Amino acid sequence: MIGFTYSSPTHIVFGTNTVSQVGTLMKPYAKKVLLHYGGGSVKRNGVYDTVVTSLKEAGIAIVELGGVVPNPRYSMVETGIELCKKEQPDAILAVGGGSVIDSAKAIAGGYYLEGEDLWEDYFVAHRKVTKALPLGVVLTIPAAGSETNSGTVITNDVTHYKMSMGANCLIPKFAIIDPSIHVSLSKYQTACGCADIIAHLLERYFTNTKRVDYTDRLLEASLQTVIYNLPRVLENPNDVDGRAELAWCGTLAHNGLLGKGREEDWASHGLQHELGAIYDINHGEGLAVMFPAWMKYVWKQDPKRFVQYATRVWGVQMAEHDEEAIVMEGIYRTEQFFKRCGLRTRLSEMDIDDTKFEEMAEKFVFCGKTGKFVKLTKEDAVEIYRLAQ
Amino acid sequence: MIGFTYSSPTHIVFGTNTVSQVGTLMKPYAKKVLLHYGGGSVKRNGVYDTVVTSLKEAGIAIVELGGVVPNPRYSMVETGIELCKKEQPDAILAVGGGSVIDSAKAIAGGYYLEGEDLWEDYFVAHRKVTKALPLGVVLTIPAAGSETNSGTVITNDVTHYKMSMGANCLIPKFAIIDPSIHVSLSKYQTACGCADIIAHLLERYFTNTKRVDYTDRLLEASLQTVIYNLPRVLENPNDVDGRAELAWCGTLAHNGLLGKGREEDWASHGLQHELGAIYDINHGEGLAVMFPAWMKYVWKQDPKRFVQYATRVWGVQMAEHDEEAIVMEGIYRTEQFFKRCGLRTRLSEMDIDDTKFEEMAEKFVFCGKTGKFVKLTKEDAVEIYRLAQ
Repeated sequence: MIGFTYSSPTHIVFGTNTVSQVGTLMKPYAKKVLLHYGGGSVKRNGVYDTVVTSLKEAGIAIVELGGVVPNPRYSMVETGIELCKKEQPDAILAVGGGSVIDSAKAIAGGYYLEGEDLWEDYFVAHRKVTKALPLGVVLTIPAAGSETNSGTVITNDVTHYKMSMGANCLIPKFAIIDPSIHVSLSKYQTACGCADIIAHLLERYFTNTKRVDYTDRLLEASLQTVIYNLPRVLENPNDVDGRAELAWCGTLAHNGLLGKGREEDWASHGLQHELGAIYDINHGEGLAVMFPAWMKYVWKQDPKRFVQYATRVWGVQMAEHDEEAIVMEGIYRTEQFFKRCGLRTRLSEMDIDDTKFEEMAEKFVFCGKTGKFVKLTKEDAVEIYRLAQ
Repeated sequence: MIGFTYSSPTHIVFGTNTVSQVGTLMKPYAKKVLLHYGGGSVKRNGVYDTVVTSLKEAGIAIVELGGVVPNPRYSMVETGIELCKKEQPDAILAVGGGSVIDSAKAIAGGYYLEGEDLWEDYFVAHRKVTKALPLGVVLTIPAAGSETNSGTVITNDVTHYKMSMGANCLIPKFAIIDPSIHVSLSKYQTACGCADIIAHLLERYFTNTKRVDYTDRLLEASLQTVIYNLPRVLENPNDVDGRAELAWCGTLAHNGLLGKGREEDWASHGLQHELGAIYDINHGEGLAVMFPAWMKYVWKQDPKRFVQYATRVWGVQMAEHDEEAIVMEGIYRTEQFFKRCGLRTRLSEMDIDDTKFEEMAEKFVFCGKTGKFVKLTKEDAVEIYRLAQ
């Protein structure tokens, strides 16, 4: 295990019918909030009304900015910052999933900058913002884990680069996680969210750090929770108990806890980000494509770790001398699980051919998330895109 | 799963050679600290010197109060409060294990009280303190989990009652967890600490709450981590990597996280507290005695949960129709594990006879920790003490 620091200061309110607490939770931070949301599903499922009523009851004025799209755009962030400079809210409330929360974080962090370029100086040059508008969250889909962590991932609509930024001041002050509002998610959205959760776990699982028994076990426990509950929820979308399991797992999968003391990889996310920046596919489904391909390419780096993954997570029991067969069975079952949950796992199923492999591999290397388990070159990236065909 | 709130605000600094950061970590809170510690082991193993040097380098003045004993005493808490009222430190630094941290929390919480009785009004009548001196921790033994939670357990030396108190203001501001300083612990101390950790996990594991797959898995992962690492550390006390696994597990086992969304039991702790208040046995070893006895008494409440425990945690694979055999094998392996680690698991081994069973059972019921999985009466408690003979 390697040394680390950890805290998880976000005040999490978890449970059925908790959305109406948002006014009370926001009141210490704001007399006026920017209410940030996505494409309108929050209006159809009633969450928007509950939020607005609760904020009004708490005497909090509202400035609205809806329309955040998946793979959230930098142009929206700029709009948000401009709106905040004009309207001067005291805080931001993100009502949505990872895209909305990430957009809100970028606005919160960009709000106080003067004479600096948020994109070039912070997203590209990795400077860290030190001051941000306080942020609250109502989580509408378990997936990104952005509700309690410090990171944001934004796509530049002009350059098609997808970049990330992180800072402690971006950690949400509170997060409402109400699994009963997740029942309105489609099966596809639910599955994509869980593919993202699985990917967050796997990015941490495949590490070169030795003696990380505890976090290995916690990651396996988390993977098994998704593997058990996701098919049940897809069969019965109103299974709030199952959705609660997925939601709590989604939060812990990416709030930093499960990667403490170990090096993390993140190449598969890097490979997916380039896909997403060009083809605008769903982030979770993109990961369901890239992760099995990545596994097939890198497993020889540490076959024993892949054997442990296959046996402990997927219950593979095969002749121990045939390491490769066990490893491949683990990867096969991973891919088959995504398929069973209705996700595509190959680029060819998405009508993506090899035309842009070189371009994506080039950007992949430029963006720097090239992996710690195995550090990938541009050529490696092209090979992995080929394996994903 | 049931609804909950959660945050873990303590800034944890984990890793080898981190004790010397204590001055820097304390500086934002204090120009003068009460340095609170136990019986002198911190002086023998060098931790005291490292702490004092670091505090001095940070320009922090020190008032000392050593001498905290296991099952920390209320008389020491009173001494500490008096000393703080005289010396006016800005914060308390606890250098020790659960006893020292709990003593420090009680002093921190009692410091601001005026015209109220800390013992009667807060420990006995469960009022919650709202203001406390800021507290920092250097953890010298993984066991109690007190380093990141809000609770304190104190024994009244006059009445022999062991009572607890909890409040958010008692949560430590920072906790240094340096596994390299744990190598000086004796095998017995190490094993007792881990028995406490196991008990914290089991108190949460045995629940009547349904659909708690995720926390079940996380608890099993934690149990397996102790089961794997403790014997290795006992064989090789200088195995800092193994000690790191135990330390991180000990913190997460009792910071609230693993019990979120489920009812917890705590009867075994209650039964042990009465033992500890009268016989002054080690808390962890007392739990190694009481938990198997409690299990034998209550398993019929939910045989399937005990089967899950036996199969998932201990790998019991027996004919599925014979539920009782599987359950008993799981309990047997629990007890044998404690024995293997050098702990006594029966009262008779501690020369404790049945003379005080009635008295302890009476106090057990009075103190209120009578269990949620099965709510125990005084008669039940006597029966469990008999099973522990």
